Amino acid sequence: MTEIEFIESILREQSDYVREQYVAGSDKGVSEKAHVNDLLTEVDLAVQRALVWRIHEQYPDDAVLAEEDGLNKAPDPRPKRCWIIDPIDGTQNFVRSLFPAFGISIGFADDRQVQAGGVAFPMLDQILLAERGQGARCNGAALKVTDVSDMAKCRAEIDLSSMDTRPEIFKRFARLFAESGQLRYQGSAVVALCSIATGAADAYLHVSTNAWDIAAGILLVEEAGGKCTRLDGSPLDIYTTPQSIVASNGALHASLLDRISD
Amino acid sequence: MTEIEFIESILREQSDYVREQYVAGSDKGVSEKAHVNDLLTEVDLAVQRALVWRIHEQYPDDAVLAEEDGLNKAPDPRPKRCWIIDPIDGTQNFVRSLFPAFGISIGFADDRQVQAGGVAFPMLDQILLAERGQGARCNGAALKVTDVSDMAKCRAEIDLSSMDTRPEIFKRFARLFAESGQLRYQGSAVVALCSIATGAADAYLHVSTNAWDIAAGILLVEEAGGKCTRLDGSPLDIYTTPQSIVASNGALHASLLDRISD
Repeated sequence: MTEIEFIESILREQSDYVREQYVAGSDKGVSEKAHVNDLLTEVDLAVQRALVWRIHEQYPDDAVLAEEDGLNKAPDPRPKRCWIIDPIDGTQNFVRSLFPAFGISIGFADDRQVQAGGVAFPMLDQILLAERGQGARCNGAALKVTDVSDMAKCRAEIDLSSMDTRPEIFKRFARLFAESGQLRYQGSAVVALCSIATGAADAYLHVSTNAWDIAAGILLVEEAGGKCTRLDGSPLDIYTTPQSIVASNGALHASLLDRISD
Repeated sequence: MTEIEFIESILREQSDYVREQYVAGSDKGVSEKAHVNDLLTEVDLAVQRALVWRIHEQYPDDAVLAEEDGLNKAPDPRPKRCWIIDPIDGTQNFVRSLFPAFGISIGFADDRQVQAGGVAFPMLDQILLAERGQGARCNGAALKVTDVSDMAKCRAEIDLSSMDTRPEIFKRFARLFAESGQLRYQGSAVVALCSIATGAADAYLHVSTNAWDIAAGILLVEEAGGKCTRLDGSPLDIYTTPQSIVASNGALHASLLDRISD
């Protein structure tokens, strides 16, 4: 089994579990982590533990970097092979939202580059997969970013879910807030990145993302024809947490970078 | 057949049609109205025409106020009975989005008060209904707003989809952008109001809404136990377009009004 086949199989398994838990509703075993808006559910933990168990079973020598359960420190020295996991990105939306904008994200890095990645959206019954150099697809259909190049038509995701980062976001993205034709914030980096890969959005910007938020998503964007850098235009490093991000359809990338303040 | 039974039956019919069109995808016959981000699809028009036809057949003497097709002027003098329709609220999301955050909204006003209202979310297979004094429900289950009273836990929808209104929004809601625990903008007033009614959000604020955006939604919020006013705390008038709105779970209403700048 190749890594991408493995990713698909474990995403499918956990997507079914998350869907059942979401539909069952009511008590999701919610607890607060760092502050009242930093939620953790028993489902996040159960999904992560199942994924880590399956990875260790299949690839006993590989490293794992994941959001929960004390696995959120990048291995040092950097490992050759590493699995980077967010069991549920958009936990707030999992706990409370009309539209189920949350996903499971798995990236596989070899030599510090994401080589394969996948995202499951349990309530959309969608699995998105990408392999470096092989393109991206959703439920088997090839994905392609938009060709929107006009800021007045740009649909941008700018995430305001965390109170801590909002002052910097309002300062650095003031021109984008004024000039981007459409704006959304759905509260999930994975949703935002996959929106670019599928053509549902043209750009995503954030001042602070974690490896597990973006590992699979950046490969999906790039393999669908888009581009991902830091806010200063430099390359992303998958083991740096936190780091900034601009993801786009490519056509808008220079215009977006031009409009970001220091 | 009562008005609410009639609303339910025509929502169900059109929800099925919209779902089919969304799933069929590709060419939705998109055209631009006032500007490049003000979209109209053939589906908006087809849904509105079907709804208006059914209303005229059932209630030939009643007035209709609706977003499209030249029916967007409030009847003058004010009619005793009027149907207020948004065939698809969230047309941008209907045309392009990963999560299908759009709905069909129908309000029935008698003596300038919304007496019955319903919203269909075609891709969630949900129909929300409310009758004045009789409560609100979703697919038959009673709806109730949250009891969140702490701004640090407030999940607020502040809509930035229109470029025109953003400068006023950033000015008037600056404190809310800083102090609301969670922020979202999904690009649909109907989604935002129904999120409050179902407990998925605690607040929605906008400087400019139209009658068809809010007619059904405000009744759903109120009948689920919430509160809706203008930004200055004065009552909404259903025939005034545009007007500002604060909708909340009630518990947060005074705190929200306190934090809005002139």
